[in-house]
Amino acid sequence: MNESLETDALSQVGEVGLVEPKDFVSEEPFTFEDGSTIPGLTLRYETYGRLNAAGDNAIFVCHALSGDHHAAGIHSLRDRKTGWWNNIIGPGKALDTTRYFVVCSNCLGGCQGSTGPMSIDPRTGRPYGMRFPQVTIRDMVRADKRLVDHLGIRKLHAVVGGSMGGMRVLQFGIEYPDLIERMIPMATTARESAQAIAFNVVGREAIMQDPKWCGGDYAEGEGPNVGLAVARMMAHITYLSDESMARKFGRRKRVKDDTEQFEVESYLLYQGQSFINRFDANTYIYITRALDHFDLAGTYGSLESAFAPVKARTLCVAFTSDWLFPPKQNREFVLALLRAGKSASYAELEMDLGHDSFLVDAPALYDLVRDFLAN
Amino acid sequence: MNESLETDALSQVGEVGLVEPKDFVSEEPFTFEDGSTIPGLTLRYETYGRLNAAGDNAIFVCHALSGDHHAAGIHSLRDRKTGWWNNIIGPGKALDTTRYFVVCSNCLGGCQGSTGPMSIDPRTGRPYGMRFPQVTIRDMVRADKRLVDHLGIRKLHAVVGGSMGGMRVLQFGIEYPDLIERMIPMATTARESAQAIAFNVVGREAIMQDPKWCGGDYAEGEGPNVGLAVARMMAHITYLSDESMARKFGRRKRVKDDTEQFEVESYLLYQGQSFINRFDANTYIYITRALDHFDLAGTYGSLESAFAPVKARTLCVAFTSDWLFPPKQNREFVLALLRAGKSASYAELEMDLGHDSFLVDAPALYDLVRDFLAN
Repeated sequence: MNESLETDALSQVGEVGLVEPKDFVSEEPFTFEDGSTIPGLTLRYETYGRLNAAGDNAIFVCHALSGDHHAAGIHSLRDRKTGWWNNIIGPGKALDTTRYFVVCSNCLGGCQGSTGPMSIDPRTGRPYGMRFPQVTIRDMVRADKRLVDHLGIRKLHAVVGGSMGGMRVLQFGIEYPDLIERMIPMATTARESAQAIAFNVVGREAIMQDPKWCGGDYAEGEGPNVGLAVARMMAHITYLSDESMARKFGRRKRVKDDTEQFEVESYLLYQGQSFINRFDANTYIYITRALDHFDLAGTYGSLESAFAPVKARTLCVAFTSDWLFPPKQNREFVLALLRAGKSASYAELEMDLGHDSFLVDAPALYDLVRDFLAN
Repeated sequence: MNESLETDALSQVGEVGLVEPKDFVSEEPFTFEDGSTIPGLTLRYETYGRLNAAGDNAIFVCHALSGDHHAAGIHSLRDRKTGWWNNIIGPGKALDTTRYFVVCSNCLGGCQGSTGPMSIDPRTGRPYGMRFPQVTIRDMVRADKRLVDHLGIRKLHAVVGGSMGGMRVLQFGIEYPDLIERMIPMATTARESAQAIAFNVVGREAIMQDPKWCGGDYAEGEGPNVGLAVARMMAHITYLSDESMARKFGRRKRVKDDTEQFEVESYLLYQGQSFINRFDANTYIYITRALDHFDLAGTYGSLESAFAPVKARTLCVAFTSDWLFPPKQNREFVLALLRAGKSASYAELEMDLGHDSFLVDAPALYDLVRDFLAN
C-alpha cells in the first residue's frame, strides 16, 4: 500500500531528463537603449514541455546575474549537476512541464552562448569586449521577445524569475502587456539600494583594476581571474544570510596545506575558483551595471506610471532573510502595482537562507507558484 | 546673556590642540601567543592630559582595525584633520583631559609606528613581512601593558574602545584584573560571526592574490595597492548601514571623466585610494586574522570562564544599525559578565550610521561614557 503510494508520488513528480540547448539566431539589427546597434544577435535557450496549439501555455523563466539558459535537466547522462532551477521545473513540479512549455534563455549580454561582450563583432572580426553596448534589463527583455515570437508563443502564461530575473519579469510585464498573463517576481527590487550598488561597484573595481583585465581585451581564459574571483566571493556573501552562514560554517576550522583555515574560507575560495571557470569578467561588469541602473521609478517618473500599461496579474514572493533585495523593496513595488489598479499579491516566506532562498528546495514557494499558475 | 552662556560652554569644551606622538621602545624580548619571540618592540603612542600623583587617573583608548595612536588633537597647525576620536577626547569632553590622563597606542602588529610586519627584523636587517608572528588581541594587550607600566600608571580608571578596540578592552579586563577599574567596549563582539569572517577572508584574498603582494615581500609604496583598496572598499560598506548609505548617496550620479558614476562609487573609490596611502597590506592581513581568531568562549571554554577573573565594572554600548557586530553580539557578552557575577550594564543607542556609529558625533554616547566614568 505504502509502496504503491510512493510509486504514484514518484510518477507525479519527475525530471525533465536530458535536454539540449539551442541557439536562436536573429539576423535583424538590434538597437540598444543607449542607441548603439549590433547587426544581429544569438540567444542560447532551452525549452521543457510542449507548446500547445493555441500557443498560450508558455512560461518564460528569467535567470539571475550568474545564471543561464540551463534551468532544468541534464545535458548528458554523466552530468552530476542539473540545471539551476531543476527543483521547480519538471513533470508535476510547480512549473509543470506536462502542462506548460517552459522556456529559459541566456540573457543578452551573457556569456553562456548568447550575444555578449565575448562574442565576435562581425564588423571587426574581434570580440566586442568593452565596445559592446551597455545592455539594460529592457534590452534583455526586448531580445527575449524575439525568441518568444520565433517559438510561436502567442501568450506567456507567466514570466517567472528571482533577483535580476525578477527585474526582467517586471520589465516584461511593462513592455509587453498583451503578451504577459502573469508575473512572478521573487527576491527582487524595482531599484537597488545604495548598499547593493556599492557591492557591485567594488566587484567591478576588483575586475577592472586586475592588471589582466587590459581594458576588457583579454584572451579567453586569460582574463582578470583574480578580480573576478574576488568579486564573486564578496557577492556570494550578500546572497546568504548571517544565520545561514552561522549554521553552515560557524567558526569551524579545517587544516589545508598545513595551515588552519576557517570553513567559510575554503567555501568562498571554492566559489571564487569555480566561478572563473564558467563566467566572463566583462559580462560581469556589463550585467552588474544593468542591475545598478535598473530603476523603474526613475525611468518612468514613478512606479505607478511604470506599471500603468501592465495587464498581468502579479504574485511577488520575498524572503525574510534576504538583505540584498529585502522584503521592504519587494513590498514597495507590489504596493505601487496595487495603487496603479493592478491585481497583485505578495507573499513573504520565513526562510533564513538569505537572497538565494528562491533557489533552494522550498515547498512553500512551490505551492504558492503552483496555485497562482492554476488560478 | 545668551552670549555669555555660549562663551561658558565653549570654555568648558575645548581641544587638546597640538600633540606629539612618542615612541616607547621595550628592549625586552616579547613572546607571542603562537610561541614566536621578537627581540623587542616599539609602540608609538600619544597622551592627552596629565597623570596624577597616585597614577590612577589614566584611561587607555584602544583603536580599531584601521585606527592608530593619533586619537585626538592635531600634529601641526596646518593639520586639517584631527585625531580619529577627537570628538570624545579633550578638555570638558567625555574623556575629559582636565581630569584624566588619556593614552592611545598604535597596536602591536600595526603600521603607524609600532612594531609590525613592515618593521625591520634586527636579526636579518630586512622587514619581517609575513615572517612576523601571528599577533593576537591578547598579544596587543600584553604589549600595551608594557607601555602602561612605563608611563607609571598604577590603575587604569578605564579602558575604552570600539570594534577591535572593544575586543582589546575585554581582553585587558581579563588579563589584568587588578589594573582595570572600568571597561567600556562598544560596537564589538566576543567572537565574530561567520559573515564577518567571510568579509575579512575576501579582503585578505584580494590582497594576497594581487601580483604585487609577492608573498608579503614588497618594497614600501610598491605593495598590493589594488588588493588593499578593494579590501578597504568592501570593508567600508560593512561599517555603514543600508539607511545611512541611502541617505548619504541614494542613487545619485555625477559625471566624472566624461562618464556617469554613482556617488557611492566616487566615495568608495576615494576611500580605497586614501587607505593605500596610509595603511600597509601585510598589517591588514595580520590584524584581520587577529580579529577573526579572537574567540573568548573558544579560548577559555566559555564566556563565563573567560570573564571569571574580571574585577572591572563594564559599560557596553551597542548601536541598533550595526550589522557587523550587531547589538545581539554585544548583549551576549554583557549577559555572560552578569552570569559570571560581574557588574555590567548595557546601552543600545538608536543610531542609523551602522558600525561606525561609535566614531561619529554622538552626544548620547558621550553622556553615557561621562556618567559611567564619574560613577
